[in-house]
Amino acid sequence: MRYKATVVYDGTNYNGWQIQPNGETIQNQIQQALYNLTQQNIHITGAGRTDKGVHAVEQVFHFDCDKVFLNFERAINSQLPDDIYVSSCLRVPDSFHARYDAKWKFYSYMVNTAAYNPLQRNYAYQLCEPLDVEKMRTASKVFVGEHDFTSFNATKLFEISDQVRTIYSIDITENNGIISFDIIGNGFLRHMVRMIVGTLIEVGKGKLSIEEIEDMLVQEDKETVHYNAPACGLYLIKIGYDED
Amino acid sequence: MRYKATVVYDGTNYNGWQIQPNGETIQNQIQQALYNLTQQNIHITGAGRTDKGVHAVEQVFHFDCDKVFLNFERAINSQLPDDIYVSSCLRVPDSFHARYDAKWKFYSYMVNTAAYNPLQRNYAYQLCEPLDVEKMRTASKVFVGEHDFTSFNATKLFEISDQVRTIYSIDITENNGIISFDIIGNGFLRHMVRMIVGTLIEVGKGKLSIEEIEDMLVQEDKETVHYNAPACGLYLIKIGYDED
Repeated sequence: MRYKATVVYDGTNYNGWQIQPNGETIQNQIQQALYNLTQQNIHITGAGRTDKGVHAVEQVFHFDCDKVFLNFERAINSQLPDDIYVSSCLRVPDSFHARYDAKWKFYSYMVNTAAYNPLQRNYAYQLCEPLDVEKMRTASKVFVGEHDFTSFNATKLFEISDQVRTIYSIDITENNGIISFDIIGNGFLRHMVRMIVGTLIEVGKGKLSIEEIEDMLVQEDKETVHYNAPACGLYLIKIGYDED
Repeated sequence: MRYKATVVYDGTNYNGWQIQPNGETIQNQIQQALYNLTQQNIHITGAGRTDKGVHAVEQVFHFDCDKVFLNFERAINSQLPDDIYVSSCLRVPDSFHARYDAKWKFYSYMVNTAAYNPLQRNYAYQLCEPLDVEKMRTASKVFVGEHDFTSFNATKLFEISDQVRTIYSIDITENNGIISFDIIGNGFLRHMVRMIVGTLIEVGKGKLSIEEIEDMLVQEDKETVHYNAPACGLYLIKIGYDED
């Protein structure tokens, strides 16, 4: 039987989603919790990886298990640390795949432009200087649409064959000095959201022009972009599937 | 020369404001940072203590020092951990006293009534059940005004002679499942805000009536109230002085 689960997590204390040789990961914590419940080694497949320090409001994973759970959420959450919380778990057709079936992904990135706030230090990039939101909004349109994002990508080239992705929308809003970048696309390369936001921040500071970021994008060259906004500001908000 | 400073902190990793025999405290961190800057043992006096796990958006303290600082905030923040941030420091008359001169204190308490959120686990009480806000608003009026708050007080009686305090206002608002209790008064006894909020939460659950909390207040008996909302939801927002 296949299950689809959604999970919220605070990424601060983890070395990202995916199991690594070093450091605790979210995938490992969930697989350990599943082992505690079932005494079986169950592999979970996430919709996507999140890096060290990145948070998720709704990450999705699937797994196979021959057990029927009465209240799976309560059972697994009792085995998880308090910074990881499984918010739903449903039986799905065996054909469901968390990664391949994902139609869109929605990420948010938070930047604090006001005074340094220790209460947000793990939850928003503490830039603490003003940004020109209007300029960033105009510049963000460069990224919307289908593009080869090789320049905005930290993956080693031999690992993936196709760097073309479609960004459906980038919305930039400000509230009490916190600027939030809401980015929806059909998929994202490694560090792509953080590199786009990092580049837009340079535009917001007046240090890069729209023409310069257009140039960066068309270069399709991994060595072009060196801006990478810190992980702590990034949230995986939602992953869209056909059935939603 | 006397200085008045304001400080923001995330109380999660501290054993409260005041120096204790065990555990790291905010006062100790600041005094250590002052020592690093001046090579002098400088005692700081806070406007009030906050307990273990309680946060501050604007705690106030004063201290005496014969040094003139060019950019004190930058200097001291370079010596502080990233969960404590001195947001201002001004020279004040030698007569200024952070505690005695405080005219009012403003605390907020945050309760999450929606699903458990690991991202807020240290920043809002994760109650995760609905509360009747209207009932709590009505009940909160019991506390407003001048009262003997002996029943809503965790201080040992021999430590203070006077349990009479005035609450100027209690405002209860809801936003996306987070209920916030904003309480302003001329002063608060130990655990008083958390005991008031804990009691109002019982009203919001339908487990206590307004008459029952009126009874608790007039009892003026430390053994009366056993509700104490968790520290992580409490924020010292601002302390008012005549010059503000």
